[in-house]
Amino acid sequence: MANIYDNAYDLEKAIRNSDEFQGLKEAYEAVMADEAAKKMFDNFRETQINLQQKQMQGEEITEEEVQQAQQVVQLVQQHEVISKLMEKEQQLNTVINDVSRIITKPLEELYGTPEEQ
Amino acid sequence: MANIYDNAYDLEKAIRNSDEFQGLKEAYEAVMADEAAKKMFDNFRETQINLQQKQMQGEEITEEEVQQAQQVVQLVQQHEVISKLMEKEQQLNTVINDVSRIITKPLEELYGTPEEQ
Ligand SMILES: [Ca+2]
Ligand SMILES: [Ca+2]
Repeated sequence: MANIYDNAYDLEKAIRNSDEFQGLKEAYEAVMADEAAKKMFDNFRETQINLQQKQMQGEEITEEEVQQAQQVVQLVQQHEVISKLMEKEQQLNTVINDVSRIITKPLEELYGTPEEQ
Repeated sequence: MANIYDNAYDLEKAIRNSDEFQGLKEAYEAVMADEAAKKMFDNFRETQINLQQKQMQGEEITEEEVQQAQQVVQLVQQHEVISKLMEKEQQLNTVINDVSRIITKPLEELYGTPEEQ
């Protein structure tokens, strides 16, 4: 029992010390240190969250909203400091998803994947 | 980098060997070995998943469906072997949620919780 938590804290430390997390941290701090980039990034995040919430609540998303969201995405993709941050987020996400798949394997084996049932 | 994966596999092993997972496994196998219990449990799971999907898709859930779901819940709660399984699932869920909170702490510190922003 204690063993699980010990291992979880070791893993947390390994994530924290990883190149992926350190790279993300630097990229995030670079965006936060640049007022215009920070504003653009906040706007991007807000747009994404709003659209996700609408989708989850089954609300209709207008064509105008889709176009606005696409414009915001294009803006951040063209912004070097922000696109660097998004790339670093993607890299750490991949690692976190791998980790999540590894540690939920016992459960997946027990209950079986949908395909195996 | 390798370090993260090493630690993740150690954590997976600790989860697999834990009393919580072993208890869940025994409770699950007890349900699967009892044909009537297995049928009732499958029915319960199916009902839950259907309602969740409707909710996520913003579909209306009728009063009849709510009542049916409540009946299914009552049935499984009264069934000793199934309620044991649900209790064990709850216990392992608590551990997995704790683990998830521990390993995402670096990210939470970086981005801040919604309350802190
Ligand atoms: Ca560095
Ligand atoms: Ca045992």
